[in-house]
Amino acid sequence: MKKILVIGSGAIGCFFASKIADKTDLTMLWRNDYQHVIDHGIKIISDCKETIFFPKIINNLKDYQEQCDYAIIATKVLPSINLTAIIKELKYPPKNIVLIQNGIHIEKEIYKNFPQCSLISALAFIAVSKVSCGVFEHFAYGRLTLGNFPSGANQDCLDLIALFKANNVEAKASEKIEEDRWKKLVWNASFNPVSVLTGGCDTKKLLDNKNCKDLLQKIMKEIIELACQDGYNLSNDLINKNIEDTLVMRPYKTSMLLDYEANRPMEVEAIVGNALNFAKSKSISTPYLSSVYALLSCY
Amino acid sequence: MKKILVIGSGAIGCFFASKIADKTDLTMLWRNDYQHVIDHGIKIISDCKETIFFPKIINNLKDYQEQCDYAIIATKVLPSINLTAIIKELKYPPKNIVLIQNGIHIEKEIYKNFPQCSLISALAFIAVSKVSCGVFEHFAYGRLTLGNFPSGANQDCLDLIALFKANNVEAKASEKIEEDRWKKLVWNASFNPVSVLTGGCDTKKLLDNKNCKDLLQKIMKEIIELACQDGYNLSNDLINKNIEDTLVMRPYKTSMLLDYEANRPMEVEAIVGNALNFAKSKSISTPYLSSVYALLSCY
Repeated sequence: MKKILVIGSGAIGCFFASKIADKTDLTMLWRNDYQHVIDHGIKIISDCKETIFFPKIINNLKDYQEQCDYAIIATKVLPSINLTAIIKELKYPPKNIVLIQNGIHIEKEIYKNFPQCSLISALAFIAVSKVSCGVFEHFAYGRLTLGNFPSGANQDCLDLIALFKANNVEAKASEKIEEDRWKKLVWNASFNPVSVLTGGCDTKKLLDNKNCKDLLQKIMKEIIELACQDGYNLSNDLINKNIEDTLVMRPYKTSMLLDYEANRPMEVEAIVGNALNFAKSKSISTPYLSSVYALLSCY
Repeated sequence: MKKILVIGSGAIGCFFASKIADKTDLTMLWRNDYQHVIDHGIKIISDCKETIFFPKIINNLKDYQEQCDYAIIATKVLPSINLTAIIKELKYPPKNIVLIQNGIHIEKEIYKNFPQCSLISALAFIAVSKVSCGVFEHFAYGRLTLGNFPSGANQDCLDLIALFKANNVEAKASEKIEEDRWKKLVWNASFNPVSVLTGGCDTKKLLDNKNCKDLLQKIMKEIIELACQDGYNLSNDLINKNIEDTLVMRPYKTSMLLDYEANRPMEVEAIVGNALNFAKSKSISTPYLSSVYALLSCY
């Protein structure tokens, strides 16, 4: 059985861990509520069904004494989280480091600091959120796109995809995971900041307002331009596609808005700041993205 | 004695009315709390001193049976307030209509609809706010700039200025009141929206944040460009001047932020929307102003 270590025990980490818990040698790092999870397990509610699983739980990475096949990192991407320092707490470097995280250009630090590890970058398309300690509700989707950073998909990556697919996760390989990150960012860098800055509008309210819809489109266009300058030729058709795909879903709040309302830190740097840094490095003007970033930086 | 009618019994209207109450035949329109003000008068607290005055109070403009010399309009500029309809309730059109209001391009409708009246446009520089029914606290300044719309300063305008000056109001004439409106808008269109959209920052917090200060400067630059296209050559030096003038004051909340926090309507159209409409009419791109407008339009 593959040895899997999950770091980041939020909704994303727990959902995907639950899928492979029975088929792997699974350990999860759990900093808070350690004993509660050992006693009661982790519960996933999906389609009115409850699943409980009891992985091995550690509350200190130093207690993990083996070399894991895959260290799945499902933390948020925040300036306050030093991922390199966290991974270095491990006695043995993981064979593969798997980043299931949001944002753009988030891999470079890990790629540079852990040259001995194979690095898999992954995008989750899922609506799942925490209900209470160790309890998560899954609303929609559950897809993963995985590829090696900076490109390709090696055998370990394909094996992990096969493992997820064998356990009812729609997982697929990407030969250009950075391109997929830019594609996802088209939605993330527009809807997330705007949902917070409009005082808490859901997707329908944002798109019902003509000025706001126009702003979303302008930000999307800037992201597509940045992606093109980064070597990925995204089409402007993505703008309408993102809007149409959003309109067919029932109205919902973005993850950044949910974080803001719950007084949790927002992934502003990963989702907006990194894109802006890239724009600056290429002297590309992105006034719409710059505006929402400046406003969010005061929060 | 000059017959003065004040429409708009908020902090601005009451403060300037208090200054000339003894020297004029003063009537104020008071929609709410009508009887309370008749019984208790209007109180202005300034420099720890209280002034109470008892103007004639009406709660319906139809009760004003004379022709006034000056109808001073000190309402907010809001889409919900139809100023033409309000003034038409008067039996006799005023000799002069005086707009002490915020924003840009706010005079045209009145200018067109009341060709028989002389139109005076005025800008107030003052920090005064409502404490309770009929009670207002004055914190700083108290200046007025007045001029005829679209330009010049006729004898009635100069007489009104003289009246204010004789009663300790620092009032001055402007031959180009529209230029003065653009100048004031450089500050108003930047600090007001950004203070609301950053979740409620005061002036110091806004200027302490590098990204936010940069955004304020970008919006100011756009307003200056619009003013130039409207025929008023404002200098870019105004950007630093506005910031320096703000930094020497103690930190304060903008009027739009105070309105937002008190759940009162905000003057978004007068201060931002009208400038944007002008930009569109001239095909001038103002991405920073457009961004804050789009976000505020969801509030």
